[in-house]
Amino acid sequence: MPNHSERLSALRSVLAAAGVDGFLVPRSDEHLGEYVPASGERLAWLTGFTGSAGMAAVLADKAAVFTDGRYTTQVQAETDDSLFERRHLTEEPLEAWLRAHAEGRRIGYDPWLHSEAALKRITGVQLVPMSPNPIDAVWRDRPAPPAAAVVAHPLEYAGVTAETKREAAAAELRKSGEDAVVLADAHSVAWLLNIRGADLANTPLALAFALLRADGSVRMFLHAPDRVSAETRSILGNRVAVEPRAHLPAALGELSGRKVRIDPDLTPEWFAATLREAGAIVVAGEDPCRLPRAMKNPVEQQGARDAHARDAVAVARFLAWFAAEAPKGGQSEMSAANQLLAFRREVKGFTAESFPAISGAAENGAIVHYRVTEATDRPIAADECYLIDSGGQFPDGTTDITRTLWSGPGAAPAGLCARYTAVLRGHIALGTLRFPEGVAGPHLDAIARRPLWEAGLDYDHGTGHGVGSFLSVHEGPVAFSRAAKVVPIRPGMILSDEPGYYLPGQYGIRIENLLLARLAEPQPDQVRPFLEFETLTLAPYARALIEPALLTPAEIRWIDAYQARVLEEVGPHLDEATRAWMEAECAPLEA
Amino acid sequence: MPNHSERLSALRSVLAAAGVDGFLVPRSDEHLGEYVPASGERLAWLTGFTGSAGMAAVLADKAAVFTDGRYTTQVQAETDDSLFERRHLTEEPLEAWLRAHAEGRRIGYDPWLHSEAALKRITGVQLVPMSPNPIDAVWRDRPAPPAAAVVAHPLEYAGVTAETKREAAAAELRKSGEDAVVLADAHSVAWLLNIRGADLANTPLALAFALLRADGSVRMFLHAPDRVSAETRSILGNRVAVEPRAHLPAALGELSGRKVRIDPDLTPEWFAATLREAGAIVVAGEDPCRLPRAMKNPVEQQGARDAHARDAVAVARFLAWFAAEAPKGGQSEMSAANQLLAFRREVKGFTAESFPAISGAAENGAIVHYRVTEATDRPIAADECYLIDSGGQFPDGTTDITRTLWSGPGAAPAGLCARYTAVLRGHIALGTLRFPEGVAGPHLDAIARRPLWEAGLDYDHGTGHGVGSFLSVHEGPVAFSRAAKVVPIRPGMILSDEPGYYLPGQYGIRIENLLLARLAEPQPDQVRPFLEFETLTLAPYARALIEPALLTPAEIRWIDAYQARVLEEVGPHLDEATRAWMEAECAPLEA
Repeated sequence: MPNHSERLSALRSVLAAAGVDGFLVPRSDEHLGEYVPASGERLAWLTGFTGSAGMAAVLADKAAVFTDGRYTTQVQAETDDSLFERRHLTEEPLEAWLRAHAEGRRIGYDPWLHSEAALKRITGVQLVPMSPNPIDAVWRDRPAPPAAAVVAHPLEYAGVTAETKREAAAAELRKSGEDAVVLADAHSVAWLLNIRGADLANTPLALAFALLRADGSVRMFLHAPDRVSAETRSILGNRVAVEPRAHLPAALGELSGRKVRIDPDLTPEWFAATLREAGAIVVAGEDPCRLPRAMKNPVEQQGARDAHARDAVAVARFLAWFAAEAPKGGQSEMSAANQLLAFRREVKGFTAESFPAISGAAENGAIVHYRVTEATDRPIAADECYLIDSGGQFPDGTTDITRTLWSGPGAAPAGLCARYTAVLRGHIALGTLRFPEGVAGPHLDAIARRPLWEAGLDYDHGTGHGVGSFLSVHEGPVAFSRAAKVVPIRPGMILSDEPGYYLPGQYGIRIENLLLARLAEPQPDQVRPFLEFETLTLAPYARALIEPALLTPAEIRWIDAYQARVLEEVGPHLDEATRAWMEAECAPLEA
Repeated sequence: MPNHSERLSALRSVLAAAGVDGFLVPRSDEHLGEYVPASGERLAWLTGFTGSAGMAAVLADKAAVFTDGRYTTQVQAETDDSLFERRHLTEEPLEAWLRAHAEGRRIGYDPWLHSEAALKRITGVQLVPMSPNPIDAVWRDRPAPPAAAVVAHPLEYAGVTAETKREAAAAELRKSGEDAVVLADAHSVAWLLNIRGADLANTPLALAFALLRADGSVRMFLHAPDRVSAETRSILGNRVAVEPRAHLPAALGELSGRKVRIDPDLTPEWFAATLREAGAIVVAGEDPCRLPRAMKNPVEQQGARDAHARDAVAVARFLAWFAAEAPKGGQSEMSAANQLLAFRREVKGFTAESFPAISGAAENGAIVHYRVTEATDRPIAADECYLIDSGGQFPDGTTDITRTLWSGPGAAPAGLCARYTAVLRGHIALGTLRFPEGVAGPHLDAIARRPLWEAGLDYDHGTGHGVGSFLSVHEGPVAFSRAAKVVPIRPGMILSDEPGYYLPGQYGIRIENLLLARLAEPQPDQVRPFLEFETLTLAPYARALIEPALLTPAEIRWIDAYQARVLEEVGPHLDEATRAWMEAECAPLEA
């Protein structure tokens, strides 16, 4: 059992010795991504909180952990409130807490772990950069940084050569008169160079930085560069240098007098500070890989279809297994998640789960980002609601699907069915939407919520996120979320469509498909291009939870057509028993 | 006929003499509002363009007018393309044009006519403040600035005393440690001090600036201060000084060393520049009147209901008149607009139209912000589509209503009915929406567009705008528009709900009601407050254009209930013939 009190005391001693009054501990590592390697889990080490977003602030006499609505329950379970106050990241923000308890004082931060944009929002205190990170001085058994092999991502999956991508991004720099751009987002480096790695459990990434210059050449910086084999180096070509991270300061120093683009949201402050010190001109601008990466090319689009078709077989086997086993009792959240993973392991190309599966029965389903552990594992009883959100990484695509099920054998309560049906109606409304070019995710979030809003209900998370191509299951810049930036949805983008409803202490409902945006066929008098979505995910909804009387005729027709498609495309790849189950599950609602 | 070529030459001579390479001519006056007095119509004087938003840029050898999608047709009709290129304000922006034609050159601007925020977006040229405005030097017959009487807005309409408002705004300044705020928005001055004027044709405003200090005292600055009578001054009280505009520089000078709030979007740059020169500390912050002004108090809410109920009588008389006269032919856009105005003039409390009525038959209806003039007036033939958008100013409230009609006597074409019905469905979807606290206008715009989007159709304007209380018919900060700021909708706000569809050269459809946001009755398991809308506008939809087969049962029920309410509330105040017409028009669709 880690002793967080001792850890906090040790950190405070270091801070006192360094002459600062406090220190900020964000969840992020040096790449500011959502997933971090074990060596970067400083927030979890210090506080015990293991959620994917959060921040701790430590003062000499008090400390607090800031998390969002998804983690309210989890942070209570994982942290000690005698050590850390728990606060809501947006409703009781860090800035207000610092002003209340440390106005004007010296607060340390690690310039590798915060973007300039994030630091700008912290006012009223004196921010003091501290590098190396003072936590590292007291974290005795800190794991070594990951150093998995870096491999090429072949053209048959990537669709476009790295050379073409480098040239396009470099042309953008030349157009705006910039000499180079810093890429701190390791996803951008992987996409740009058509490489993948295994530094993180669920995202096939090598944690690398890169400098792309306006001539199209790249210097990539990563821990243990010898893990890039001679073969991979020869594929990268002689315009891509592979260097140790220790070369970074000197490389930035060489940019004295040059115009260097930095994405202020995605880049640790260290880069801009080091560049300015070296006499470079830092220009705020978007990571030039971010938008093209999100717009999947035709090969990636086909890869996504193929990966989803194969993944659908594992999902169907799981759903049929659940339908057979759950009514008997004897299964648990963990056994179910393990069963799905076992089915996925049999799918060609499966490399890893795209995130740790969320497998929540009854009241655990109401914990939005629940992660089942030995300690929290709970049986799935008969006649219970069960939610499973999971996905896989395949070289041709990344999947992410949620289904909410009824364990049976009895009928599900009418209230649960009504709410499942409302969630399903929102999911369909978004998935079947047509909309003109220029419309962005924040404008569409309400479309999926409306059926719940009618009943005074809602969910405390976004409706959907971008998904990478054999990259992160959560990929910017687009999201169906009111909090997302206004970035128009473009053809080729893949987004999740996952409204939900959570009744604390009772059950959670979420229904998720991945959608591929594409141009719609023009209609009479149409004056500008419209987009629509192709549904990538192929799995039946839960017949036991649908209340057809609450659906419109158009909704019923859509469900029946979708399930007929699932049966047609997935059915032929199933064993007989699974296919029989699917035929029953997909039978038309409209008799 | 004004000679725009001569005017342009005269301006160019002044610019050359002043040593600048160009000059910017925005639509706005010194209050940066939508409506400007004749003395402030510099853009129209120079270019001929009379729309409510736009900008001209004049260089030595070329010039351009920038307008938005609403004015594409109008700018072509009103300006001479041998003098001015016509460009789309957002798709071919000013900034790009200046970079292309005047990179690095000296471009003049009047610091009274641009906000700091707007100027910040203009990069790549050297901006040179010019005051007085060089146009004023060559505009020989420029009208005098308006100087209508300033009167008190009585408590029976305002609902809250000026003293209470001043104290609340001052308390906000004290809370943030500021000494004063500049109010350049004359609507804020009018709201804060409970005064009204008649400086503009359609908005009961006195064009005044104010300085509100943290002690709650106010200095108001306006042209011809003697138009504030002794009686009004005594109502204003001795904490409100009434001063000539010429006192402004000295008044700002007295703020040396003080923290002064300025809304960077709503305040001419002149204020911040003058304050900084005087040694004041300029703090960017919201106009403290903007949000409370938008949240109508209970007295204003009841006033809005009362004003709408009275206005509805004029509208019903007009609609019945149209139904009787239009099938015969012989009416015109202008005669119809005049007839509606004549009916409105008979309504108690009517002071003016809240904007110049838009009265467009057939293809003129497709011009979104069409304004009928003697020159453009067009007969309304039998069997044509006709759109009328109009409103009134009443001391208890401001109205704004659009109805689209069919002149008859024949049946309307099926295509027109299908699109009218799609617009109506969007209008109903937004008007009947329930949504949780925190949701803002940009998130809801899509709700009203969805039925049109399904058919690949759209409209190139926002879905709705805020409406003032005996103030501007277009009031910030909320709007059902993707371009609006993310400001949550709050109880007491009044917004228009006006989706449309425009088929160029053929017809325009728009349907508009005003909505009052209020808290909704809580429902089972609801965890946070929800809002809904009360419909203020009371007028039948066009029965001849509704295609019931395209409506859901719920939509039909809503229309029938709304029209029954219209009949019940308005009917008793109508003459017999008008009531008979209304009874037929409001008869249930559901037989």
